Amino acid sequence: RATALVVKIKQLKLDPNFNTEGGKILVVPVDGSHWINMKVILAELHSRGHQITVLRSAKSWYIPSNSTVYTSIDVPMLQDEVDINYYNKMLPDVMNCCRYPGFLHTFCVRFLITSMLTQGHDTLARSAAEILDNFVLMKKLQESKFDLMLTDPGMSLGVILGSYVKLLMVFNVRWLNTGEGHFAIAPSPVSYVPHTMSELHDKMDFLERTNNMLHYLYSVYQQYFVINPAYSEVFQRHFPPGTDLLSLQLSADIWLFRSDFVFEFPRPTMPNVAYIGGFQCKEAKPLPAELEAFMQSSGEHGVIIMSLGTLVSSLPSEITETIAAAFAQLPQNVIWRFLGEKPSSLGNNTLLVNWLPQNDLLGHPKTRVFVAHGGLNGLYEAMCLGVPVLGMPLLFDQFDNIVRLKMRGAARMMRVKLLTKEIFLEALKDLLENPSYRKNIQHLSQLHRDQPVSPLDTAIFWIEYVIRNRGAAHLKSAGLSLPWYTYFCLDVAAIVMTITGTFIWGSVLVCRCLCCRRSRKKMKPE
Amino acid sequence: RATALVVKIKQLKLDPNFNTEGGKILVVPVDGSHWINMKVILAELHSRGHQITVLRSAKSWYIPSNSTVYTSIDVPMLQDEVDINYYNKMLPDVMNCCRYPGFLHTFCVRFLITSMLTQGHDTLARSAAEILDNFVLMKKLQESKFDLMLTDPGMSLGVILGSYVKLLMVFNVRWLNTGEGHFAIAPSPVSYVPHTMSELHDKMDFLERTNNMLHYLYSVYQQYFVINPAYSEVFQRHFPPGTDLLSLQLSADIWLFRSDFVFEFPRPTMPNVAYIGGFQCKEAKPLPAELEAFMQSSGEHGVIIMSLGTLVSSLPSEITETIAAAFAQLPQNVIWRFLGEKPSSLGNNTLLVNWLPQNDLLGHPKTRVFVAHGGLNGLYEAMCLGVPVLGMPLLFDQFDNIVRLKMRGAARMMRVKLLTKEIFLEALKDLLENPSYRKNIQHLSQLHRDQPVSPLDTAIFWIEYVIRNRGAAHLKSAGLSLPWYTYFCLDVAAIVMTITGTFIWGSVLVCRCLCCRRSRKKMKPE
Repeated sequence: RATALVVKIKQLKLDPNFNTEGGKILVVPVDGSHWINMKVILAELHSRGHQITVLRSAKSWYIPSNSTVYTSIDVPMLQDEVDINYYNKMLPDVMNCCRYPGFLHTFCVRFLITSMLTQGHDTLARSAAEILDNFVLMKKLQESKFDLMLTDPGMSLGVILGSYVKLLMVFNVRWLNTGEGHFAIAPSPVSYVPHTMSELHDKMDFLERTNNMLHYLYSVYQQYFVINPAYSEVFQRHFPPGTDLLSLQLSADIWLFRSDFVFEFPRPTMPNVAYIGGFQCKEAKPLPAELEAFMQSSGEHGVIIMSLGTLVSSLPSEITETIAAAFAQLPQNVIWRFLGEKPSSLGNNTLLVNWLPQNDLLGHPKTRVFVAHGGLNGLYEAMCLGVPVLGMPLLFDQFDNIVRLKMRGAARMMRVKLLTKEIFLEALKDLLENPSYRKNIQHLSQLHRDQPVSPLDTAIFWIEYVIRNRGAAHLKSAGLSLPWYTYFCLDVAAIVMTITGTFIWGSVLVCRCLCCRRSRKKMKPE
Repeated sequence: RATALVVKIKQLKLDPNFNTEGGKILVVPVDGSHWINMKVILAELHSRGHQITVLRSAKSWYIPSNSTVYTSIDVPMLQDEVDINYYNKMLPDVMNCCRYPGFLHTFCVRFLITSMLTQGHDTLARSAAEILDNFVLMKKLQESKFDLMLTDPGMSLGVILGSYVKLLMVFNVRWLNTGEGHFAIAPSPVSYVPHTMSELHDKMDFLERTNNMLHYLYSVYQQYFVINPAYSEVFQRHFPPGTDLLSLQLSADIWLFRSDFVFEFPRPTMPNVAYIGGFQCKEAKPLPAELEAFMQSSGEHGVIIMSLGTLVSSLPSEITETIAAAFAQLPQNVIWRFLGEKPSSLGNNTLLVNWLPQNDLLGHPKTRVFVAHGGLNGLYEAMCLGVPVLGMPLLFDQFDNIVRLKMRGAARMMRVKLLTKEIFLEALKDLLENPSYRKNIQHLSQLHRDQPVSPLDTAIFWIEYVIRNRGAAHLKSAGLSLPWYTYFCLDVAAIVMTITGTFIWGSVLVCRCLCCRRSRKKMKPE
């Protein structure tokens, strides 16, 4: 009987006739992989009749200026000063962190990445100043009477502009400056909520909790002493006294989180946080004939798909040679998204491609394993379609992402720098031959699909909710505006302890006086 | 343009063909008003093909033994020893609490009600022992192979039985033993989360926060030193060592909360908490001809509806006389659910009834004000249908409930004991004549209806989710199983401080040694 209950739930669609007049939405996206998921939401908003304006850099990496979905305005941004190869250049340093054992590795990666982000904040602060001083542009933005700012707060520009023009604000978010956005908005007890880039999970022992605490303290230091000061000049000139980046972020109406609790460890959340993890998932479409033929030629062994995402175009050649040699020894076919010089050790079973239809390949019945860097988009695709993952994290949250699947027995993780042919083959064979990985990730897939409303519909619902109800003030916690000593009730504790202390001290004093008097009486001769 | 966006959202219905085979659900409800809402869920579950078994007392106040929706089993329960008049008898004491000013009033009410609840725990512990020792009944429950226990943890019996039979567990919850269920499962910083029965809100000043802290500390004391010990014998005999009532409550898979964030102040929540506030709401049906005629006869003045809920059948006669005299002076008609002796001062405009179709009356266009005790069911009906409330809280969470509507400008509150004709008339006239109350509660109504899935469908979805997925372990926070000193990282803090302290002390020691040596050298003659 119980088996009969395992029915795939039919996900409900939002009424397409609803909100037909649409709103005017200003969008400040983050370039790169973040844009890949933002544009899914924009396409859906456009199809529902909303007018969309996107602010982008003239030198944007991925965001086209011409689109049927939106109109764009070029503004000074990070991409004017930083090109996408920047990430390739810093990769060897991050990879070298594996020379440190255990938790020191995570701090090494954190320091490198945060120092890069810190430079980014200086550039962004300059961009913000330039935009706010551009009288013509600001007048245009003000007069356009947008209903809403939809932005990814991973870069600060949208938050600053949206607050300045006093727009309602919805975040499409996973990261903030100091790490995962959850840490800004929801209580995050470090005893069971692993901090970003700590590579920890939710069942920590004493040393892991200490490690987590150190990561947390470092991020607090970074927020208040590195990031907030980077913008102090902009805020002094254009905002009321006391404004800092964090306070602007906390004023957003709705946080659309690009994750859910099938992927994330369970943790406290807030009423104005909606979970849209996997909103980019879709069923696989048929492959082009050539790829389909290659897939079928794998026979019973199936195919391994490898892609390291959009930011890092290539690994050091000694590593690609090792990987190619390992692949050559497998009976499986391999499709590898590969930019750069072809490895000499490449086997006949391995097809190198510049680009691959990743979702369609992952949904193909011949696909056995996904070798991935652990970006959130790719992992959600693997999870939706039920393909086990061999994770080779390179930057940012990729380490943490892989840890989440690994803890559920749906992935293995390796350090790229420590990779040898033997280690790589052992992990791949384990994933191919041990059926538990596939069973576990397909269980996650089933849980992920078991939602009353699809994640993309959830995203659209809340964006339109904010437009319809002119914000969501009733969902914003009063705790966010309290100073930290009030938030933690330290003022109350101090007064209560002072009063109790005074009372005890007073009582002791009175007792002693009484005792003195009595003993003096006794000493007096009758 | 913005007005065009204010469209009532079409709420989505769960697929009726889904889960047709249904599950076997054991239900342990709480009697009284809690049953009134539980039965709404049971009817819906039944219509979706689930088999329902309800455990009830043979002397139940409201739960019939015969039903087309469920089969019932009589077991020893609180109602065998306590009759519903118990609440009437304690009412004068609670009302007398108004002789204390300010926050002392809230503590007076708290002490009275918790002393009553504490007695209840002793009775419930005896009932639990008796049921667990009933070999025949327990065998029957075990062999019935239920898929799920659906219970209201306001009384402990369902939690204890469900845990003993090792059933998956879903709560239909607002209250726990120590107060609002949120305080057990989600972080609740006392700086902005008002404690149950504190009559506080989320924007507290220093004294209010101190007051809130005292309420919180008292409830912690009560949980660990009053309630848990009441069950110690039952747990020692039937459960593994270390089990207490709180740990069993925390093991529930899903908490269906009978509130939402249109009503509640925004606060942290957890992934396994789903909000179903207003699941009992429905559109008003036409009234019986006689009542409709009475409504229409009110002309432009409209009608006042008064009902004090299910638990308290009547107020002291001096108060009903005052209320009747006040009503008599109004141009409005009044429909008053009234049990007991008819007041001598009753006006011609006031209709006394034993029972009233509350929802249909509140949804009638002639209805102007709802005079209510502030039970959650009634307030949600008023909120759904947009009728301002004059709250006269009597017991339990009724004080807090009214505060929530009052803070949104949708209700006024009065202390029953302090009620005079003038005060009562002034409040009623304010609610009748000042349009802001109606505007505010209709805004709440609009926000409440603006959900992608209706609250009742949300409840059904999660109950079936737990059956379908055999629990929801992936949504349960790892923090719930940590000891308190680990949860708050006090062990980490202690070690970090010890190490830092030792380091500083060591450094000082070394410095002093070096200084000593140098000064000794100086003192030595060359």
